[in-house]
Amino acid sequence: MQYPETLNKLIQILKSLPGIGPRMAERVAMHILKMETPDINNFAYTLIDVNQKIKNCSTCHAITEIDPCEICTSTTRDTSIICIVEQPSDIFAIEKTNDFHGLYHVLNGVISPIDGISPGDLNIRTLLTRINEDVNEIIVATNPNVEGEATSIYLAKILKPLGVKISRIAHGVPVGSDLEYIDSMTILKAFEGRQKI
Amino acid sequence: MQYPETLNKLIQILKSLPGIGPRMAERVAMHILKMETPDINNFAYTLIDVNQKIKNCSTCHAITEIDPCEICTSTTRDTSIICIVEQPSDIFAIEKTNDFHGLYHVLNGVISPIDGISPGDLNIRTLLTRINEDVNEIIVATNPNVEGEATSIYLAKILKPLGVKISRIAHGVPVGSDLEYIDSMTILKAFEGRQKI
Repeated sequence: MQYPETLNKLIQILKSLPGIGPRMAERVAMHILKMETPDINNFAYTLIDVNQKIKNCSTCHAITEIDPCEICTSTTRDTSIICIVEQPSDIFAIEKTNDFHGLYHVLNGVISPIDGISPGDLNIRTLLTRINEDVNEIIVATNPNVEGEATSIYLAKILKPLGVKISRIAHGVPVGSDLEYIDSMTILKAFEGRQKI
Repeated sequence: MQYPETLNKLIQILKSLPGIGPRMAERVAMHILKMETPDINNFAYTLIDVNQKIKNCSTCHAITEIDPCEICTSTTRDTSIICIVEQPSDIFAIEKTNDFHGLYHVLNGVISPIDGISPGDLNIRTLLTRINEDVNEIIVATNPNVEGEATSIYLAKILKPLGVKISRIAHGVPVGSDLEYIDSMTILKAFEGRQKI
């Protein structure tokens, strides 16, 4: 006996999600089968809701239910600093620190010739329109890999002529880690970025 | 900034699925956000479909879209053997071997006083109605743990008076494993169940 057709369809969909393998997809599908009708309907309608209600902020491209997003419309945020990130999810990671109170701008990717992504594919034009006399500093928080570095260098090159201060988040040894297990490139960056105590 | 409300709701639902932790739920939700509208609708309607179309076979309690299920209505299966399993998913695991051609009966659990599950909570009454002169053997394929063993002993006790042969699947060293890493109870069972070669 094969899985019933609809169950098989559900397993295939679950298998296509990141981090869910074939065995786990079967396990999750079996769990869903045992869920109560209101819970399963809630799951289905939440999916439809997420698709219909969540959009990108027209100013900073963050994901939001209201446009412009709550950060762009906030009166308590520091509008003199803009932090540039690759993905909307990076904003939530930074917001969890409760330390950065400026604005954000989502590039929606990084420059990557190998994947055919050029500067024109990123949200750089809308970034340029946001830079006015209010803006003092741009923090580039792209990921610390080859593409992220290349993108930060590109951004520095086009933003510097606008007379704005450009900074890059520090690379170094993560808090709570063990030097023994850190790769040499990170240790190199940690030495380069050493600070007086 | 917190996650938008609907996205947060989706993350909570994903987190409640087996094997999906908080970080993975966020990752899967972000993936779902990027899915195309037809794909996300397909996901939602498959959930509703699974809930509406899949039921339990009234004979063997397997999950099926048609009642009775395709195994119970098949003309090619050996109706003289019934294999007793705990969960509908166990049937798919056994069917993958392509070796067993009899019928199944799903108990829908095991006797477990600690969880308040007594024989009356299992599909035992419907099992008894299926045992007629056609049935020669009942194979008890409950899981090899305390509850599975207790349930197999209970079933043997109530089925033996009906004059039917009752057998239990073998416990032993799994194929492809390494004796060094096998627990002693399994090795004990493997010795007890040794066969002439």
